[in-house]
Amino acid sequence: MTADDAKRQLRHLIEERVAAVARRDAEALAAQQAADVLAFNVLPPLRLQGADQVAPQTEAWFDGYAHGPGYDVRDLHVDADGDLGYCAFLYHVTGRLRSGEEVSMWVRATLVCRRRDGRWVIVHDHESVPWDPETGQGMAGLDPDEARHEPG
Amino acid sequence: MTADDAKRQLRHLIEERVAAVARRDAEALAAQQAADVLAFNVLPPLRLQGADQVAPQTEAWFDGYAHGPGYDVRDLHVDADGDLGYCAFLYHVTGRLRSGEEVSMWVRATLVCRRRDGRWVIVHDHESVPWDPETGQGMAGLDPDEARHEPG
Repeated sequence: MTADDAKRQLRHLIEERVAAVARRDAEALAAQQAADVLAFNVLPPLRLQGADQVAPQTEAWFDGYAHGPGYDVRDLHVDADGDLGYCAFLYHVTGRLRSGEEVSMWVRATLVCRRRDGRWVIVHDHESVPWDPETGQGMAGLDPDEARHEPG
Repeated sequence: MTADDAKRQLRHLIEERVAAVARRDAEALAAQQAADVLAFNVLPPLRLQGADQVAPQTEAWFDGYAHGPGYDVRDLHVDADGDLGYCAFLYHVTGRLRSGEEVSMWVRATLVCRRRDGRWVIVHDHESVPWDPETGQGMAGLDPDEARHEPG
């Protein structure tokens, strides 16, 4: 198994993830995770430990949407060595909440994966939006093309 | 070089990081990064590409503090296979800003590292606080012990 094969498999994991969100399939998403996954999610708490803790949050995420969530991945970067790999990407969440609010937010995601018994599983999942210390607001409305600008 | 050796080296990288922050040594922090590092930082923009983009943000971070920043790492998890590894941890930032404001915030951090020419460098750095969609606020004041509670 070469590193190129591993990278192809990791890209496939992301394709499956996108397809699972499109089906609102929380079980398929949970099946991608190691039982002992450490998750730093967009929403609180600070961290979740274990797929059992992540699953209710995924369900609640789907339940919040009357239409969607849309989930478009871009700027996917994958790399692997041996049985360890990772995926870093941005995703665009769109849709309409049950409250009627329209959503359009960009999230940064990092998935660290382990190949166990020949199958890649997510052992660590970090997803977030930036934070503006001036206002205290989370910056859910940032556009990745504007974000390419140099800081300062 | 065994995986245990690699994990020891990654733990050492974090020790060096903590020491560099204590010295307010932005150059030492920059030296840990690959030239092409992809950074999803706590502060905007959405992402920075390259150590040249990250360095001014690190300098600005130090400049903002009249005392500190303190930087205490906990719950450090490291793993590696071959020349790819990662570190996931929480860190507690404390100190007093030049504005007089006292800071006490917990951040989630994920560092993906590559061993290049025998030395580990950070190729991807993701740091964040959670986001509360009800208020739109970033949650910089979460305590990791409270965060252990089950969601919902």
